[in-house]
Amino acid sequence: MAERTCAMVVVGNEILSGKVQDSNAYFAARELRKLGVALNRIAVVPDEIPSIADEVARCAKTFEFVLTSGGVGPTHDDITIEAVAVAFSRKVVIDPELRRIVGEHFPGGINAAGLKMCEVPEGAVLISAGDLRFPTVQLENVYILPGIPQIFESKFTALAGRFATDPYFIRTIYLNSGESPIAEHLNSCLRLYPELLLGSYPRIGHAEYRVKLTLESKDKAYLKNAFDCLIGLLPAEVVVKTE
Amino acid sequence: MAERTCAMVVVGNEILSGKVQDSNAYFAARELRKLGVALNRIAVVPDEIPSIADEVARCAKTFEFVLTSGGVGPTHDDITIEAVAVAFSRKVVIDPELRRIVGEHFPGGINAAGLKMCEVPEGAVLISAGDLRFPTVQLENVYILPGIPQIFESKFTALAGRFATDPYFIRTIYLNSGESPIAEHLNSCLRLYPELLLGSYPRIGHAEYRVKLTLESKDKAYLKNAFDCLIGLLPAEVVVKTE
Repeated sequence: MAERTCAMVVVGNEILSGKVQDSNAYFAARELRKLGVALNRIAVVPDEIPSIADEVARCAKTFEFVLTSGGVGPTHDDITIEAVAVAFSRKVVIDPELRRIVGEHFPGGINAAGLKMCEVPEGAVLISAGDLRFPTVQLENVYILPGIPQIFESKFTALAGRFATDPYFIRTIYLNSGESPIAEHLNSCLRLYPELLLGSYPRIGHAEYRVKLTLESKDKAYLKNAFDCLIGLLPAEVVVKTE
Repeated sequence: MAERTCAMVVVGNEILSGKVQDSNAYFAARELRKLGVALNRIAVVPDEIPSIADEVARCAKTFEFVLTSGGVGPTHDDITIEAVAVAFSRKVVIDPELRRIVGEHFPGGINAAGLKMCEVPEGAVLISAGDLRFPTVQLENVYILPGIPQIFESKFTALAGRFATDPYFIRTIYLNSGESPIAEHLNSCLRLYPELLLGSYPRIGHAEYRVKLTLESKDKAYLKNAFDCLIGLLPAEVVVKTE
């Protein structure tokens, strides 16, 4: 099965201005990896309709699906719905089902802020999954998720089954050497196993190791052979441990 | 003085696959904000030359300067130098000054891995600042920084004086109410103070508050007037504290 590709568009002046550290992209990166989906791009863009719309349009054309995070809600800076509509040249309309759900929280009648939460790009579908109070809005291959981490994570988890393909197998090697002395061994291993996904991550100030190597493949036997090859190439005294 | 604009391109399969949480973009976002620079975009792209080169070329045209993070070093996956060269249609060449510096660490002669660390895009300049062991490579309006957080941060700090313009003033209001009931007050305040940068950040599960509002301006008096206006509009019982 071919790997699915995905991009994430984070709407967030608060991230660009350093007020908040994004955690949704990190959460999605880990979960998508487990699901066997290739997250190929993360873009953090300002709360401006043209910036969001351009990025969403470009990603929607390039990747199989797109997740957006943030800019959904009742306040003046919540413009992701409108921006996704612009990206696909759609109008923004009130969704009757959302209006029914939101209306339950406004016994005295929905105010302007509540009505804003009923807006969707024309042609969007609602995905009700799990025990979520509020469905997720999907337009074409774009899933519109909120920025609040707890809600982002529960909505993502409810959607995960739609994204899953086949997973990666992974091995890890920890070294007490720097990168330069072992670079030639990494290159030799890659010449023999060109399909191996090999990562080398130096870490400063860690008590146990200096470099973490990750070896990944969707083919379990290929990974085993590549791992054995690299372990054979590396000087035994630099290998701290393997996982 | 007009605000300078900036973008950050993070090169990182390890971030896209969720193995590592980026901290360099978060660090840069906070520091650039203090320096009065508008960080308008963060893009995380895979360790592939076309992806990096496309993003760097696009950002270099759109923003005043660009910072890259990661993909610099002696191993097979360190391709940022080559990608930035491609972005500006330059060749990759060995820099004589880098060769001299790197050579000091290879008394027996520089090996292939060491030689890779002497490569720069043709026409690049070296910035030696502070007590850094290794200068920063700059090509046109692109600064090429390493991915290891400690080195990224020390290199960024050494460059900060080049980026500084005029800073923001900021006030914060913490509320014990949700966003919906106060959305109309935010909108009223923005109609009176359209230049105010107003952020509204819900927080779930915090003991002290439910929403954090940030008010920012480069004009101290304008900020004070807008702050006083918004405090006057908000019901006193929802304001937990201000900063």
